[in-house]
Amino acid sequence: MLTRIDHIGIACHDLEATVAFYRETYGFTDVHYETNEEQGVREAMLRINETGDGAASFIQLITPIREDSTVAKWLAKNGEGVHHIAFGTDGDVQDEADGIADKGVRVLYDSPRRGSLGSRITFLHPKDCHGVLTELVQKSS
Amino acid sequence: MLTRIDHIGIACHDLEATVAFYRETYGFTDVHYETNEEQGVREAMLRINETGDGAASFIQLITPIREDSTVAKWLAKNGEGVHHIAFGTDGDVQDEADGIADKGVRVLYDSPRRGSLGSRITFLHPKDCHGVLTELVQKSS
Repeated sequence: MLTRIDHIGIACHDLEATVAFYRETYGFTDVHYETNEEQGVREAMLRINETGDGAASFIQLITPIREDSTVAKWLAKNGEGVHHIAFGTDGDVQDEADGIADKGVRVLYDSPRRGSLGSRITFLHPKDCHGVLTELVQKSS
Repeated sequence: MLTRIDHIGIACHDLEATVAFYRETYGFTDVHYETNEEQGVREAMLRINETGDGAASFIQLITPIREDSTVAKWLAKNGEGVHHIAFGTDGDVQDEADGIADKGVRVLYDSPRRGSLGSRITFLHPKDCHGVLTELVQKSS
């Protein structure tokens, strides 16, 4: 079951400048930074609110660390903006993805990969989700 | 102060079909429908989770009701996808907007307008927000 908006993923050119914008304009707190070599991005997580399932909702800012990363290509085409949205699961993310695949939605990974904060993640094809690249997140236990 | 992700606003061509997708694929509940004549949209709110400030986070699906609405033009240019994000305030939305304007961000409305579920809303210019059309929401008390 999907029990929360886990995060909104926003692609930006300059991670530090964009974190500063969110921190100074809105007062949000940057709680975590990491580099995901596999996805070719560096990211910052800003914690926005607690969620009813005992987890939290974040703004995830992502910037490419190499020109051939999918996010670099996305930025070149679209400019800065919302790149994806993510829902949090209360159980195994692969089970959730399997159930969604059974409804005819293409799942982009054969098996879950490592996401922010030690989570297990997968993505759904945006063309099967009314134009929205959609991530499923099982948070680290 | 901004205390939650209030909603993610997603533009779609067919409101009923897109609601059905979110309901059937993810099990989300469509809790509210309304038409905003001023903005030229019909919208559905799907409630995703409770938030720590005692409110909730929603997916807001919006579809144009006339060809000259800004969302109709946005859809013609971009296709279906995430149109805006919205943060909820714990106080007066105009006070919040004034504080943000003082930091050099353009606020799109001179005074708050009526949003979903009787809320008071305003928008921030996407070019001042790293490409993200950003809404501020003061929920109905």
